[in-house]
Amino acid sequence: MPFIANTPMHRIQTRVYYAETDAGGVVYHAAYLNYAERARVEFMRDLGFSVADLTRDHGLIFAVRHCDIDFSSPARLDDALEITSEIVEIGGASIRFRQVINKTGMDAAKPLVVINVTLVAINKDAKACRIPDFLREKISIYAPAMTGKKGEE
Amino acid sequence: MPFIANTPMHRIQTRVYYAETDAGGVVYHAAYLNYAERARVEFMRDLGFSVADLTRDHGLIFAVRHCDIDFSSPARLDDALEITSEIVEIGGASIRFRQVINKTGMDAAKPLVVINVTLVAINKDAKACRIPDFLREKISIYAPAMTGKKGEE
Amino acid sequence: MPFIANTPMHRIQTRVYYAETDAGGVVYHAAYLNYAERARVEFMRDLGFSVADLTRDHGLIFAVRHCDIDFSSPARLDDALEITSEIVEIGGASIRFRQVINKTGMDAAKPLVVINVTLVAINKDAKACRIPDFLREKISIYAPAMTGKKGEE
Amino acid sequence: MPFIANTPMHRIQTRVYYAETDAGGVVYHAAYLNYAERARVEFMRDLGFSVADLTRDHGLIFAVRHCDIDFSSPARLDDALEITSEIVEIGGASIRFRQVINKTGMDAAKPLVVINVTLVAINKDAKACRIPDFLREKISIYAPAMTGKKGEE
Repeated sequence: MPFIANTPMHRIQTRVYYAETDAGGVVYHAAYLNYAERARVEFMRDLGFSVADLTRDHGLIFAVRHCDIDFSSPARLDDALEITSEIVEIGGASIRFRQVINKTGMDAAKPLVVINVTLVAINKDAKACRIPDFLREKISIYAPAMTGKKGEE
Repeated sequence: MPFIANTPMHRIQTRVYYAETDAGGVVYHAAYLNYAERARVEFMRDLGFSVADLTRDHGLIFAVRHCDIDFSSPARLDDALEITSEIVEIGGASIRFRQVINKTGMDAAKPLVVINVTLVAINKDAKACRIPDFLREKISIYAPAMTGKKGEE
Repeated sequence: MPFIANTPMHRIQTRVYYAETDAGGVVYHAAYLNYAERARVEFMRDLGFSVADLTRDHGLIFAVRHCDIDFSSPARLDDALEITSEIVEIGGASIRFRQVINKTGMDAAKPLVVINVTLVAINKDAKACRIPDFLREKISIYAPAMTGKKGEE
Repeated sequence: MPFIANTPMHRIQTRVYYAETDAGGVVYHAAYLNYAERARVEFMRDLGFSVADLTRDHGLIFAVRHCDIDFSSPARLDDALEITSEIVEIGGASIRFRQVINKTGMDAAKPLVVINVTLVAINKDAKACRIPDFLREKISIYAPAMTGKKGEE
């Protein structure tokens, strides 16, 4: 069950492979963004939306507009990781996620990496556009603080 | 159950994320090698061996020595993929895998991508070394054609 | 001058960054394919063709159809690399490159990695198509063995 | 000349290859961090320091501690890019860079991507450590606001 019971938090698990590490012996810093993308895509999928379908059927892409990433401790080859994702704000055209990467079973108070990422909905003309209602309604169940009024675009 | 019943074949599943695609709208050709690495690591793990432990406890790394990759059809964003892996030969210092990538549920006779990859065991001095017996014994269960005599190094 | 005088060989140089290395302390095997792509794109550009223009103006993409890669020795962080590329065959719809990756200034007879790659021209419908004459003529200057008769598609 | 005359700003150029793009037709957001790494490594190299030498001779690695990335407009396949890098602060153990990615020849006031990244010097035990004086002195020439007093660790 990907959504953690009684919370709006979604969780996926993965392991660290060579492809994601670097010669420092740890996960390459940019590779955490790949984990985060995967976690958001699975979050949406578990709400019932596939990114490919959103593009094909609705001409909608969610582009990354801003990232803030705090790297506290590194993950290493073969580590079992857990990525938890939570929507912290929905604007007119934007969604803001807070995502936490940690080793499975480790102290949640000491995450390895914390990513705050703002996505913006863009249409086929690459313009920011209002998030469609069918999507907004579904997402809002998992976004307690949602207002729909504070658009960032 | 990752090993397919009554066969020496191991299977993992994944999905295609943006990180692995390119502007041609398909999976970037080199990204199939990442899937293949993941599949081999999980194959070894399901035999009881972690790549990190092999390095730490035995000073052993499996380096990719040769790859032959046939790209028949592309995978696309959001496709559910299946990677099957099979050991086709074990030499003194080398292991040869055949790996097939396909969409889940598609005709096994028409795979998207087929990878033949030869790994060579190397020690801490970066020299090819004999695959240790504890590993060879376990692997041989899943390598019907194994002889242990035909070393490639 | 990217083409080596009196030869059909093209050369680019790069350096190894963390992004391309892995926890084994060397360049991740799939990353050599990224170097090779860059070398082919610059080869085409130095003949007067941009991959983006070929797609936009002629609906043409060159897809990787087959790769054979021999990894003899690893490159490491900060190594200065040289990638030489040579067309070894042009078919009706395909081009075959031989690409050699080595450290700058090292013995050409002992390359780190050798890649044989077959590209196939595909049109907007993702079908293999004949390489247009304007492209074939230009390429043939750098492809001594070209016949134009042996199509692989 | 990589440092821009009469400024503390360093500049490298690159082109966008398929490897860095995604199925949205643009550069994958995490790939801008690869460009930024390359730009910082070349910045250090143009000051006389190789990242591999710093690790081998001084046991020193610069780890990424924090990134803030603003994605205003996307780069596309084949775009010629320019990455300018500037040190905005040096602490006891940290260096903060501001890096701007833009298309070559485009309005500097409208960059595609702006990255603020904090690196921390770590020693062989993975502990933050004071940036050695020989490095600090050289860097300070290109870091007008340097004080050396405000450590972030």
